[in-house]
Amino acid sequence: MTKIWANSGDSHLLEPDDLWLSALPDRLASRAPRSERGEKYEVVYIDGERVDRQLNDFMDAMRPPGARDLDIRLNDMDGEGVWGQLAFPSMGFWTVGITDRELAKACASAWNDWAYSEIIKRNSRVIPAAVLSMANVEDAAAELERVAELGFQSVFLPTVTRPGEEYAFDRWEPLWTVAERANIVLGFHIGTGGDTVVFRGPGGAIVNYMETTYPGMRVVSHMTAGGALDRHPGLKVLIAEGGAAWVPAIADRMDEAYRQHGMFVRPKLSRLPSEIISQQVYASFQHDKSAVEVVAATGYRNVLWGDDYPHLEGTYGHTQDTLNELFSTVPADVRERITRGTFNELFTVPAREAA
Amino acid sequence: MTKIWANSGDSHLLEPDDLWLSALPDRLASRAPRSERGEKYEVVYIDGERVDRQLNDFMDAMRPPGARDLDIRLNDMDGEGVWGQLAFPSMGFWTVGITDRELAKACASAWNDWAYSEIIKRNSRVIPAAVLSMANVEDAAAELERVAELGFQSVFLPTVTRPGEEYAFDRWEPLWTVAERANIVLGFHIGTGGDTVVFRGPGGAIVNYMETTYPGMRVVSHMTAGGALDRHPGLKVLIAEGGAAWVPAIADRMDEAYRQHGMFVRPKLSRLPSEIISQQVYASFQHDKSAVEVVAATGYRNVLWGDDYPHLEGTYGHTQDTLNELFSTVPADVRERITRGTFNELFTVPAREAA
Repeated sequence: MTKIWANSGDSHLLEPDDLWLSALPDRLASRAPRSERGEKYEVVYIDGERVDRQLNDFMDAMRPPGARDLDIRLNDMDGEGVWGQLAFPSMGFWTVGITDRELAKACASAWNDWAYSEIIKRNSRVIPAAVLSMANVEDAAAELERVAELGFQSVFLPTVTRPGEEYAFDRWEPLWTVAERANIVLGFHIGTGGDTVVFRGPGGAIVNYMETTYPGMRVVSHMTAGGALDRHPGLKVLIAEGGAAWVPAIADRMDEAYRQHGMFVRPKLSRLPSEIISQQVYASFQHDKSAVEVVAATGYRNVLWGDDYPHLEGTYGHTQDTLNELFSTVPADVRERITRGTFNELFTVPAREAA
Repeated sequence: MTKIWANSGDSHLLEPDDLWLSALPDRLASRAPRSERGEKYEVVYIDGERVDRQLNDFMDAMRPPGARDLDIRLNDMDGEGVWGQLAFPSMGFWTVGITDRELAKACASAWNDWAYSEIIKRNSRVIPAAVLSMANVEDAAAELERVAELGFQSVFLPTVTRPGEEYAFDRWEPLWTVAERANIVLGFHIGTGGDTVVFRGPGGAIVNYMETTYPGMRVVSHMTAGGALDRHPGLKVLIAEGGAAWVPAIADRMDEAYRQHGMFVRPKLSRLPSEIISQQVYASFQHDKSAVEVVAATGYRNVLWGDDYPHLEGTYGHTQDTLNELFSTVPADVRERITRGTFNELFTVPAREAA
């Protein structure tokens, strides 16, 4: 089996449990997101309120060795054949549920300061996606300017917003403006901002996994149809961990709506939805062979592989099996594009040879 | 331009406005679904309640000549190069909102009797999808047995159910049993059973068109993950008008959930989700070039073209342009499969030569 080196468009950091406790003043620290672990459940409290209940992370025992240690992580990556990683938060995801403006701002900044000093300053292969206040757009835009200066290349945004704050609305304009100017990739991560269990019934585990997919598609429809991507042609959107073969499908559907329902369409766009999408929307996947096939078969090229390290859905321990299964019979240019080229178009990591 | 003949996996009947009024006894007729047309809106009343508000169908003026007349319709079809059509209801869609058992049953039977005498008995190229009571599953199963005897080959089901009645649940078992035994294709039509306007904001027309897509994907996830398709390997599901290139994408995603989250998965399935889907799930599209490309590129072959006659999203007036654009550079076997083969695998219409 040939070792295939790849960059990952979807990985995660596991933050220290006391990140906010140690970084924030007492009166804010006590209100910052925290989790309590029981026998079977993990309960998340945000600003004192119980907001989320997740299955206990009993997979801790199976975590890759480097999940919480950067040096060991780089070693894990060498072993797996992963060179660069866009690293989303873990605990940092919880900040999207904070509604208090001061608290949201403080938690986001503390997270970014931690990621700056512990990740960015210490290595160039694992690049963190910043966290922003979802309580106030001006605060989010200001923090994005700050972290862009610190060398962040991407920012995490939840796929689900509060009702009435969907990404089609102009309220986000300050954020889009900063992101476009600073060349920051908007990293929308599947399964964030909304309820992760929407169906309780037969097949629930699979149905709910699917339910995390639609909000990623919805982000694309809102940012395309609402005009944000058209107004900001330099803005790049990555839908992480949702698979990729659906992108050409929804591009065609949006074109059909744009054309056949043209008399209802506001705003008019300067490009077809499918053109906007092929120029500005990216998608990452882990195991999907269809994600590779669409790149070979359609004009859609913005597909990135991801290892989802160190998560359960990820490829740790079988990365080379997965990469060889996906790419052994695929033309070299397609393999290069999905394993490295698309990532390198969005992000800068040092060349492997030069490291 | 070569004339490409195709069968359509997604067309519609336009029923006479007084279908229920003339077929049902007074006390039921007055409660049957009806629409009122104003300047700008069409308002639908079901059992006396205003349940739906649609944009006025001002496109009536643009309707194909045969929209309401079978003989002229067959003439339209000859002109367009469409040989066979699976014909979904129009007004018949409204019956899914009826909650009263007697009324739901009577409206469904009256619709099917009309379709039998006016469509099935009078031609073999336009084959109607039957309507069933969504108020009671036993009534639905009994009516399905009756219409199968009358020669119906497919039945319409809404993509959105009432909460708690999703297609993963065993409550639908009687219907699946009859459909499998009678070889009736379950035709889930996009945009039915739920609200068609879920987003009011910039890009709404396109966003809402996209919103009709997710429930079609959801049907596939519920019927696959819930085990219905696994228990009934002869059951065939068609998702009509939602495009098709997303099917391999969600099959891969469901495989990933089935494998990576295996310890949470109930019921276990005898086949991988992707195998079930490639054997039992079909999808129709109108204009999407990606739908053609996935058939050529992936192992997924269950794609049907559809004209959506006589609707606005459809291809009437430009069918040959659309077919030539989609298929002129495609291998002959792929074209044959999508334009005729898949349809002929599901439905029986007379051969064109023999007609």
